[in-house]
Amino acid sequence: MTKNPDPASKPLPTLADVASRAGVSTATVSRCLNAPAQVVEETRKRVLQAVQDLGYSPNFGARALAAKRTNTVGAVIPTMDNAIFARGLQAFQEELGRNGITMLVASSAYRPELEAEQIRALVARGADALLLIGHDRDPAIYRFLEARGVPALIAWAYDETAGKPSIGFDNRRAMAGLAAQVIAQGHTRLAAISAEQACNDRARERMNGVREAMQAAGLPPEGLHLIEVPYSVDHGAEAMGQLMALSPRPTAVICGNDVLAVGAMQKAQEMGLDVPRDVSVTGFDDIELARVVTPQLTTVHVPHRDMGRQAAQLLKQMIGGTPMAQSVALQTELRLRGTLGPPPG
Amino acid sequence: MTKNPDPASKPLPTLADVASRAGVSTATVSRCLNAPAQVVEETRKRVLQAVQDLGYSPNFGARALAAKRTNTVGAVIPTMDNAIFARGLQAFQEELGRNGITMLVASSAYRPELEAEQIRALVARGADALLLIGHDRDPAIYRFLEARGVPALIAWAYDETAGKPSIGFDNRRAMAGLAAQVIAQGHTRLAAISAEQACNDRARERMNGVREAMQAAGLPPEGLHLIEVPYSVDHGAEAMGQLMALSPRPTAVICGNDVLAVGAMQKAQEMGLDVPRDVSVTGFDDIELARVVTPQLTTVHVPHRDMGRQAAQLLKQMIGGTPMAQSVALQTELRLRGTLGPPPG
Repeated sequence: MTKNPDPASKPLPTLADVASRAGVSTATVSRCLNAPAQVVEETRKRVLQAVQDLGYSPNFGARALAAKRTNTVGAVIPTMDNAIFARGLQAFQEELGRNGITMLVASSAYRPELEAEQIRALVARGADALLLIGHDRDPAIYRFLEARGVPALIAWAYDETAGKPSIGFDNRRAMAGLAAQVIAQGHTRLAAISAEQACNDRARERMNGVREAMQAAGLPPEGLHLIEVPYSVDHGAEAMGQLMALSPRPTAVICGNDVLAVGAMQKAQEMGLDVPRDVSVTGFDDIELARVVTPQLTTVHVPHRDMGRQAAQLLKQMIGGTPMAQSVALQTELRLRGTLGPPPG
Repeated sequence: MTKNPDPASKPLPTLADVASRAGVSTATVSRCLNAPAQVVEETRKRVLQAVQDLGYSPNFGARALAAKRTNTVGAVIPTMDNAIFARGLQAFQEELGRNGITMLVASSAYRPELEAEQIRALVARGADALLLIGHDRDPAIYRFLEARGVPALIAWAYDETAGKPSIGFDNRRAMAGLAAQVIAQGHTRLAAISAEQACNDRARERMNGVREAMQAAGLPPEGLHLIEVPYSVDHGAEAMGQLMALSPRPTAVICGNDVLAVGAMQKAQEMGLDVPRDVSVTGFDDIELARVVTPQLTTVHVPHRDMGRQAAQLLKQMIGGTPMAQSVALQTELRLRGTLGPPPG
């Protein structure tokens, strides 16, 4: 392991090498790798031992050419930090695994140019299909995928007007439902902390949802004091500091996700404010963080695991050549916990 | 996007197609892709537009053959859930990105047979090198990687006796340091909640550290009441329920990581116990979760970002053919916060 020999200096083991070492025909080796159930246990063990001893790995390039498949699916997510995508991807991977498909993930750090590069790398590495997050991206990427015949499914967002197959939920409607609850408590001075909205349709639609609920309740949407920050607890806290310095102070702070909301709560408590007596705070996603803070966070529950599992099933069909009939909308649910109450006074 | 045409039915665009569309020579296209700084801005834009329009992607197979590189590095981590590996990988990826290398990640769900499969898939897809977590795995995997000439670096664990290049920290010594602090507070009835220790040297070494500290303080290590559970907040809570039902009750619960510790804290508080007045709880990792709970968690801080960044630099050297002189040990730090106090009474 401490050497990195020139690959050319050591010829790679071939199927014939494995057959010779195991004392079987190449057809038997091939059967072991592709239809092991058809091979007697003892022979299979001998072949697998030879495979391991020689460090043989089937030539995926050649196999892909024959089967037009590599049994690899790529997923490009905006961040691995924080748990928002982790849980959904875990379910996505489990379901793919049941179908013998390996998932490879790349994380774009919310940078569109990096996402484009990673999509190209995954296609170049032979991904049969891709899972992408949200609809916002250069149309050239979709043209590239179409030219390559690589199907892509968009998750974490549902937009039937976007013309691309997607599985997700209506971020705008879900957030409008939560904001309506906040307003129903009597709040009129609303503020919001959002993740950066450029290239992030989820963040944008959630804020549109807040404004929609305000409009419906007769509150002028332009009265919403909105701060946009990068995605982290610390940035949520910093934005909260700015909002709590406003006069008059907002009585409810609607956050674009749980991570920002937890930062906002922390800051309020550090400033000696009681949540929700002095100020209400809400989140979105219902990740683990939402339930470990005191009081527990009022938020929108997203069916992460269900989405991941169904996305895998849909992609498998798409790889098989069956186009998706229509995008799939999943339901979200309000989780009314301890951080939402009536305004002070 | 709704069709998955037979790849054979649509020939892939070639370098010559791109050159023809952009009205330049194939040498210019090649220069644009490999040494863009040498090409005039306007020409470069025209070529990149043609690349996008045609959905051209360089043939990595042929390039790899020529350069013996694919500029892809694979990382296999045990879980994407929770933030333990996320932050380190983010730094790893940023540093690789600065060197034009793309990172692809697979998550093994703590299953060794899945890890082996993913390592083979990444090598088959042309990974130049691999980042692996911890030392525990079938020696056949190391033989396979050596046969393929693919260097691998082990992270999140430091063990100079293991004979494999690694970057990480001494889990045993770090945990022994924390346990010594717990004992110094006067605790004698210690319990521990650990992640599953099979195939997880980090978990095992941490518990060895607890026993080492007990021994050094004259407490019989076999008196440690240890519960092993899967890695989740809920499992930490469940284990805490069992420990708090013991008679006499342990006065300090040392947890193998922050996630389990946060679950344990929650459970104690649900049972009406005050942390740390009635029972002390400690974690390990210092992830975001540790600072958002009340009181904040006493834990061991791990230099995740520093480890990721240095791992990328080391792997780059290994890809270049420079063997690692010796494994790298990083320092951890105790974070004494609110969940550790003297025993009751």
